[in-house]
Order: sequence, then C-alpha cells, then structure tokens
Amino acid sequence: MGIVSSAEGISTNELQLALRNSGMPLEALRWPLTPLGLHYLLIHYDVPTVDVDAWRLELAGRLARPALLSLEELKERETVTVAVTMECAGNGRAGMTPRPLSQPWIGEAVGTAAWTGTPLAPLLREAGVSGNAVEVLFAGFDCGIEGGVTQTYERSLPMSEALSGDAILAWGIGNVALPPQHGFPLRLVVPGWYGMANVKWLQRITVLDAPFHGYQQVQGYRIRKNADEPGEPVTRILPRALMVPPGIPDFMTRRRFVAPGRHRLEGRAWSGWGEVSRVQVSVTGGARWDDAELGDAVGRHAWRGWSYSWVAAEPGDYQLACRAWDNAGNFQPLEPEWNLGGYGNNAVQRIAVTVTPS
Amino acid sequence: MGIVSSAEGISTNELQLALRNSGMPLEALRWPLTPLGLHYLLIHYDVPTVDVDAWRLELAGRLARPALLSLEELKERETVTVAVTMECAGNGRAGMTPRPLSQPWIGEAVGTAAWTGTPLAPLLREAGVSGNAVEVLFAGFDCGIEGGVTQTYERSLPMSEALSGDAILAWGIGNVALPPQHGFPLRLVVPGWYGMANVKWLQRITVLDAPFHGYQQVQGYRIRKNADEPGEPVTRILPRALMVPPGIPDFMTRRRFVAPGRHRLEGRAWSGWGEVSRVQVSVTGGARWDDAELGDAVGRHAWRGWSYSWVAAEPGDYQLACRAWDNAGNFQPLEPEWNLGGYGNNAVQRIAVTVTPS
Repeated sequence: MGIVSSAEGISTNELQLALRNSGMPLEALRWPLTPLGLHYLLIHYDVPTVDVDAWRLELAGRLARPALLSLEELKERETVTVAVTMECAGNGRAGMTPRPLSQPWIGEAVGTAAWTGTPLAPLLREAGVSGNAVEVLFAGFDCGIEGGVTQTYERSLPMSEALSGDAILAWGIGNVALPPQHGFPLRLVVPGWYGMANVKWLQRITVLDAPFHGYQQVQGYRIRKNADEPGEPVTRILPRALMVPPGIPDFMTRRRFVAPGRHRLEGRAWSGWGEVSRVQVSVTGGARWDDAELGDAVGRHAWRGWSYSWVAAEPGDYQLACRAWDNAGNFQPLEPEWNLGGYGNNAVQRIAVTVTPS
Repeated sequence: MGIVSSAEGISTNELQLALRNSGMPLEALRWPLTPLGLHYLLIHYDVPTVDVDAWRLELAGRLARPALLSLEELKERETVTVAVTMECAGNGRAGMTPRPLSQPWIGEAVGTAAWTGTPLAPLLREAGVSGNAVEVLFAGFDCGIEGGVTQTYERSLPMSEALSGDAILAWGIGNVALPPQHGFPLRLVVPGWYGMANVKWLQRITVLDAPFHGYQQVQGYRIRKNADEPGEPVTRILPRALMVPPGIPDFMTRRRFVAPGRHRLEGRAWSGWGEVSRVQVSVTGGARWDDAELGDAVGRHAWRGWSYSWVAAEPGDYQLACRAWDNAGNFQPLEPEWNLGGYGNNAVQRIAVTVTPS
C-alpha cells in the first residue's frame, strides 16, 4: 500500500474502459472451458436489453426468401455446440509503444466457451443467396459513438466465410442461455476470427452485393501505420501461447514467488490459422528456448494445453516466457509489431518470477 | 482512435489489477439481481482450485464440538437464499487525490446476487461456542504476498456479528453452484459489510478468545491518514446511489449523448447501515438537487431502485449526479474523504452528458 502519482500514464479514459471490460485472470487457463464470468468481455458501447418475445432475427438483402425468425424457430433447426477460443483483436495493445489509445489490454483478453446454436451457412442457403452477393452484414443492437460516427455495431463477413466456414448463430453457452453480456438473445460466433467478427445482440443479417464500408470495417480493425492509408483488415487470430503464472503472486506487482525445486509450468496455445504445432518455453528470458509437451486441443476451434517441467535450482529472479507456432507457418514475434489501432500484438508473454531462498 | 502518452498516471501495476479484477458495467444497474458474470470481482491473489470431494469445512478453536463438514452435510442444513448488495471497500479509490496505490476502482465495484447457503449463527451455536470467545476467524485457500507478508486471506468477525447477524455460508448463487471466482465450494456472505468480510474459498472457521491481528485485519482495511496510526476498521457499507448512464456513450470517453426531451433517469441505492430513505438527483452539477422517486428494495440486504424524470430542454453539456441517505443518518459527501488505503469513498457519482441539437 502506498501513494503514487506515476507518469507511466494510463489515462482516465483508458481506465474507464479497463474497468468496464473484463480480462480473463490467467490462472483460468487451467480450465479447458472458461468458467462463465471469467471469459473476457469487450463491450464497445452498453449492454443492450432485448425483449426476446418481440425479438425476431431479420434475414434481409440479396435473398430469394427474406425472413423474420423467432428464437424458438431458430432452436428448431440443427443445433450444435462448438468449443471456440475467442480473443480480442486488441489483446496486447498496452504493450505497444507509443500506446494506441483504446482498451489497454495486456494479454488477458481471451476465453474458451462451448457455444450452442445453429450453423449459419445452411440458414443462408435455404434463404436463397443471390448470385451477385459478396458479403454478409451482421448488425447488433448495441449503439454508440466511435470516431465521431453514431452507429450500431455492424461487421461483415466475406461470402466464402459465411457459406463455407463454421460460423454459428449462438443462443447459449453449453446448456445455459446466453448471458446479457455475451449477446442475449443471439450472437454470431465465427471460429478462428478475432472477437470483432463475433457480433453480439444480433438484430439483422443482410446479404450485400457490394462490400460494406461501415466504421468497424474500414476505420476500426485495420492494420496500418497511418490514418490516411486504408490498411489491411483484421481477420483471423494469430498464434499465441499463455502460461498459468506459477507459484503465488504479490498483490500489487503480480510478481510470482516459487520455492526452489521442480515446477510444472502449464498453459494453453491457439491460432485461428491452423493447428498449434509447437510451443516453446524459456526460463532464461529468451536466452534459451525448449520445446513444451503438447496436450490435446479442446476442440478443432479451441486452444490446446501444453506443459513444461522447470527445475528452479537457484534462488533469484527469473523471466519466464512462452511462444507458439501453428501449422500454417505463423509464429509469435519476440517484440510487438506496432500499428495505429493496436491490433494483433501476439508478442511473447513474459512473467517475472522470484525463486525464494528456502 | 489515437496515440497517447498521457500523464494522468495510472501505473502498470494498477492496470494489471484493473484488468484481472472486474467492475459491473453501470448499465447492469437495470437488473435487480446482477446477471452472473457482471457482478464485481476483487480477487486479492489467484482464484484457487479446490477438490470438493476431498474438501471439508473445518470448525475449530474455542468450540465444545469442533467438526469437519462436507459440502453435502452443509447442504442438509437449513437453506436460505438471500439477495445481498455487495461492494468493494475500495470502490471509488481512483477518485481520491493523491491516489492510494491499489485496485483503482472508479465506482463500479458493486453487484447484487441471491446467495444460497446455510445461516452461520446456528452452526456455531450447535458447535458450542466457548464463553470467552470474542471473534470468529474465516480463512480462505487463496494465498499470496501483500505488504511483504506471505498469507492466506483471513478476516475475522466480532462474535456479536457472527452469532446475531445474518451471515450465511453460501454454496450457490440462486440455483447455480458457486462459480470458481465467487469462492467455490463455499464462501462467507455478511450482508451489509464491505466485500473484504465476505471471505471466499473457505477452508476453516476458528473461534478465537483474542482479537485477530492478521494483515487483512490490522494492516489492510483500516481508515487512517498515516501508516503509523492504527486507524479504524472498515466494516459496513456506506450509502451510495448510482445511476444508469442515460443515452448512448462515446466509445473512448464514455461521455453520454441524449436527444432533447424527457428522460427517465434511474438507478439503485444501498447502505449497509440501514434502509435507504432518500435519493436526490441533480442535473445541474450539484447547483440544485431534487428528490428522486424511490422503488422497493430487492431485499432487506439489497439495493433499492430509484427514478427521476429529467426534461432535457436545451442542447448543451450537463453534469448529472445522484446521492443517497439512509435511515441511520448517513449520507454521501459531495467530495471524497481521503484516507491512506482508499477505502469507503462514497462521494457522489457525476456523469457527463451532452444533449444533442436535434
């Protein structure tokens, strides 16, 4: 406990966001499926309230058979439950210098849930997608102002992802109805894509014959160095490994303390581009890396466990780190790769650990 | 979106805490019972994992009949479900100047849950409390280092509160088992007391014949100006009213925007010292205060709704505020009252709102 007027400099605006959005405490990596209430949450505006009795999902746009569907009608369709590791595109943003001004995640914006719903592709096919359709737009009920633009949250998917991918319209997590903060009554889940694609509180799905140019598609979620370049769209999740911080923490610094001896380091790793094919661990701050043992994936679209046996022989201060590769050739960089919006920073996690004398 | 190197000065240590602990987004004041996953969370160290099959609650100390109780044995006892508004003692800390260095809550560290469990007092009485007992100590499984002291989280209650109060040993929220982050398999719930008294992940209850002097009792959770004075213990929750922020937010600043016209402002108010007897609202930054209409309390130990009709006639910038009184004579101050630990800051909430031209 003490008094600080630090100049490390998280602003009040960023703090407001950090307090209303929620990270997953990293010890929750222990669970293959993140317990309800520990999955990360990024809510752009406010959690809206939706009257589910009056609510209908609107299918509109370039469709032969537009429709209005109640939740009961959706639940009568083919139902699947799919474990999906979801991560915020801004995870790691606070590690970039200079720091892009938005939700200042360090590395905890992740979680895995078993989403229950109906596959998107057959629903669209049955509605008769027009031959000249190029994208599918998903509109939520959540409304606010961003970059000076008043908007409801809207994002599109390429036609190929909507018709050939594994996206589902989810009304539950396991057997539990979607909680308000996860998009009640219905949300989109796009396995392998960063969180921004997984539109919550769906009100309308519109098939488009021209690319969507809304704020969240062309202003937000672009990888670029300057505001005057269009940049590249943020899409799938880059590989990342995270470790359960070992030992016990100091309350204020979160530095970890462990006794000398053998410790089983463990964590999870994931990628939206392919299977995780390799995880390495360093107990020397990156001077030397060793392969970790890989466990099974929780599902085709979910993280995979890993473990590593560390013999902490000598008391002193250590820096532990871990990094992942996927079978599509992607891997984690050692240092952040900066961009204006602070997206996709999957630089390796580093954990400060003290091995105590006794 | 932009670049900032602000000197407003939340440190990296504080940010780490803000990201792993969770506030309740204030729009969740709409629900009488906070949806699971939106209740505030303050976890001093790590969420521990407990093997419930091997777990027994130990009743020890100055008792005629010490005991080890399984969760099944506890569930065979009298079972109650009690709606309790719980608030972190550090709620409001970030509003103090200079800012005490700990979890930097603005005002969102609150929630109301319907806790299911068995009353504490009859359990202790049946175990035969010794005549010279003065306190009851509750020990959790959560372990860490705080102020240089390695500890499991432990807090005591006065004998009078333990034997005559409404404390329960809770294994559930409504019909759902306690999630890990709320103290699985068993936690203490002390209605009316700040969060620190509601020990999670219970392993042992010990009846003491001398006051407990552990870290969380005599170092943490004391109201004092200097570290060398003993200070007064933090106990019951001071009155507070909070408002659902009206209109829609700007993503980055969280400033609110509303159309001209009549708006129903609403919120909740609570106190651990008595019934909320009055709530006032100001739409003029405190220049004038009007009484709000009070709704029913969600329960004897839970918050009470309030509402106020605001005619936003003129476009421009406004500051809304609300404040509560209880029937024990406590009320919210207009400005924070500083103390070293940053506890109990129940200064009135202020919300920046712009009434838009159309």
